[in-house]
Amino acid sequence: MHTTEIVYEVADGIATITLNRPARLNAFTQTMAGELLAAFDEVDADDEVRVVILTGAGRGFCAGADLGDAGVDTFSAERLGHESAGMIDGAPRDSGGAVSLRIAGCRKPVISAYNGAAVGVGVTMTLPTDIRIAAESAKFGFVFARRGLVPEAASAWFLPRVVGISQAMEWVATGRVFGAEEARAGGLVSRVVPDEELLPAATAVAREIADHTSGVSVAASRQLLWGMLGSPTPWDAHRYDSKAIFELGKGADVAEGVAAFLEKRPARFPSRVSKDFPSAVPRWPVRPDAY
Amino acid sequence: MHTTEIVYEVADGIATITLNRPARLNAFTQTMAGELLAAFDEVDADDEVRVVILTGAGRGFCAGADLGDAGVDTFSAERLGHESAGMIDGAPRDSGGAVSLRIAGCRKPVISAYNGAAVGVGVTMTLPTDIRIAAESAKFGFVFARRGLVPEAASAWFLPRVVGISQAMEWVATGRVFGAEEARAGGLVSRVVPDEELLPAATAVAREIADHTSGVSVAASRQLLWGMLGSPTPWDAHRYDSKAIFELGKGADVAEGVAAFLEKRPARFPSRVSKDFPSAVPRWPVRPDAY
Amino acid sequence: MHTTEIVYEVADGIATITLNRPARLNAFTQTMAGELLAAFDEVDADDEVRVVILTGAGRGFCAGADLGDAGVDTFSAERLGHESAGMIDGAPRDSGGAVSLRIAGCRKPVISAYNGAAVGVGVTMTLPTDIRIAAESAKFGFVFARRGLVPEAASAWFLPRVVGISQAMEWVATGRVFGAEEARAGGLVSRVVPDEELLPAATAVAREIADHTSGVSVAASRQLLWGMLGSPTPWDAHRYDSKAIFELGKGADVAEGVAAFLEKRPARFPSRVSKDFPSAVPRWPVRPDAY
Repeated sequence: MHTTEIVYEVADGIATITLNRPARLNAFTQTMAGELLAAFDEVDADDEVRVVILTGAGRGFCAGADLGDAGVDTFSAERLGHESAGMIDGAPRDSGGAVSLRIAGCRKPVISAYNGAAVGVGVTMTLPTDIRIAAESAKFGFVFARRGLVPEAASAWFLPRVVGISQAMEWVATGRVFGAEEARAGGLVSRVVPDEELLPAATAVAREIADHTSGVSVAASRQLLWGMLGSPTPWDAHRYDSKAIFELGKGADVAEGVAAFLEKRPARFPSRVSKDFPSAVPRWPVRPDAY
Repeated sequence: MHTTEIVYEVADGIATITLNRPARLNAFTQTMAGELLAAFDEVDADDEVRVVILTGAGRGFCAGADLGDAGVDTFSAERLGHESAGMIDGAPRDSGGAVSLRIAGCRKPVISAYNGAAVGVGVTMTLPTDIRIAAESAKFGFVFARRGLVPEAASAWFLPRVVGISQAMEWVATGRVFGAEEARAGGLVSRVVPDEELLPAATAVAREIADHTSGVSVAASRQLLWGMLGSPTPWDAHRYDSKAIFELGKGADVAEGVAAFLEKRPARFPSRVSKDFPSAVPRWPVRPDAY
Repeated sequence: MHTTEIVYEVADGIATITLNRPARLNAFTQTMAGELLAAFDEVDADDEVRVVILTGAGRGFCAGADLGDAGVDTFSAERLGHESAGMIDGAPRDSGGAVSLRIAGCRKPVISAYNGAAVGVGVTMTLPTDIRIAAESAKFGFVFARRGLVPEAASAWFLPRVVGISQAMEWVATGRVFGAEEARAGGLVSRVVPDEELLPAATAVAREIADHTSGVSVAASRQLLWGMLGSPTPWDAHRYDSKAIFELGKGADVAEGVAAFLEKRPARFPSRVSKDFPSAVPRWPVRPDAY
């Protein structure tokens, strides 16, 4: 991948995506959005990638939409019309949403490792990641109401599901910036670690997934759990999991997983996400024009 | 507003609604319900009101439905038929639900400041408020099963979304009365403060909202977040926020919000909720006969 | 009831269901599944039963699907075809889901008392229980991805609603086994108690329900709260609770509940779940072929 505003690296089953405009605290641009979409396409296309770590270069994670180019015109209707990621219902498509929905549809689990300030789209685009860990010096802010905007990147849907409606409303209505410990107490991150332990902590969880689980199982589980958030009753889940288990029972990973467990040895799962994803499990679309 | 069972006051952008039957621990009546509906209509009609604090006079917040008039006949079908807030599907409409759904549809954020016991409808009608703070001496109880009733005020919908289904079922199945600290641990309130610091704490959050945010942004955000609880996928949110941001980009608040941020000065947002609410954002109805 | 792999006992309003294959850590079998379905039918048929405690014999709660008979073939498509609880959409119905959905439809509240390891279906089948308490030595694991499977027993629907999507994804993606304290911090159990205090603690909550509440109220509340998880807006809840309260107002429990409260004496509720369940409240089906 050729990129200019992110760095994409794969090592030992883990793809690390680093937002890389450190002089601007990795402020979000249309270029960065496009590179993130391409990176997650690459993640899904590469069976060697089992898990993704998303982090930032330098002292920030992502300071939000870059205001450096257009200043007070950043969100003007005219500029949005030029800068957007296509159109939706007659309006310029929000590019933060293009990224967050691409992450939601990813076949691999994603770990956010917040190394510094994650504000505005810098935090909303990460809400569909599965595991969120903060460095002590990280800060967060759903600052939209202080800029005359509304929460974007489909965060009106994601945020209440991640932290509950009350915590979501308090952060959104005040628009204030808050620290890592408040983020943990409110359920936005599961852990706060000293700054220098952030990447080791994220990597340890990534390794736990990459070394011990079936990629097909994790991909199908991720789609099932996020997808069933929208199901009014548990009956669809019963239908899907019955069929998925029957389908997986014809493949190689179950036999290997059970054998490894009985023999008390590490499992080596032969199935591949690109070929063996169970057809019974519905998948979220990954192209914006599909919603 | 002329009221007899609540006090409605507006000062410096904050409307304070005080349940005011202290000799009866502010027990809920049809009169109080009607006055609350009128008060929230006034809140929405008055662009000077940016945020609402809901609290109680004296040592209680609201002791639940007033049993003083009718005693054991309070919930008799005959009395309900006379006392109700109109009919719904052939039954008397629950007046607690008329209040809670009116609060849900409010354009301004609402802060509950529990100064004492909030029991039965005294707590269920407050579940759609956005921020809930308790005094140390506050008590709570979803006591319906101990009276032969079921949770009302649409709390079967609100309570599991506020505190999770497991905590909701434990409180509802036992019907027991519990203290402020258990309410905090269970997610019903976000903070517990010494009794004398309750109104200062609620006012501080209210000021944070009133002094630093765009009223239009907060109103639209509130409708988006609560509304998207009912959306099966994040795609509607993406559609609505894309369109809302494009629409807000034509208005004055975004330019002011970004300029104030870049100039490191307080923002003064010119838009008005009554005129400038973005048409792209769906609004919950505020009249009971609309559901 | 004649049972071989569970023990079903009723005493003083409390039914205790004990998974009873201690030599196999109560590993789950088709026989056990069938006996659990029958036990919950009995719970619903018996008006003397007000609440259920579900626990395990010996040092385990339930170690998951029994791998002892078929080993690596346990989840093979061929064996699933023979062993399943009927068919669904052309696939063998997952028997864990048959149990979890039967528990979801139960008219009485269910308390899980985890006395030891609850792994795989051993924990997923308990997610629709209302209150979950763990002994200090209990362990939990959503280990499916380590076996090449996906979460079953409709847990893709239940788990995110019980613990939130982020905690759910972390446990499911890693598949790791974790202790009681992590289960409490993550919202899977509400309390952790010393091992010897587990059944006393579960019994105390059960007594609180059995001794102080109307069985009809609790049954209707349980269906309302779980059922409204699937409703996009609070308006259905308002409709159902208005009608349910009007209907309950014609019965005997409300008058008794209010009278007992006013007279400061224990209530003795005369209504029976089997006859007096309010028709206004929709009920989840209890037969798998109804979904």
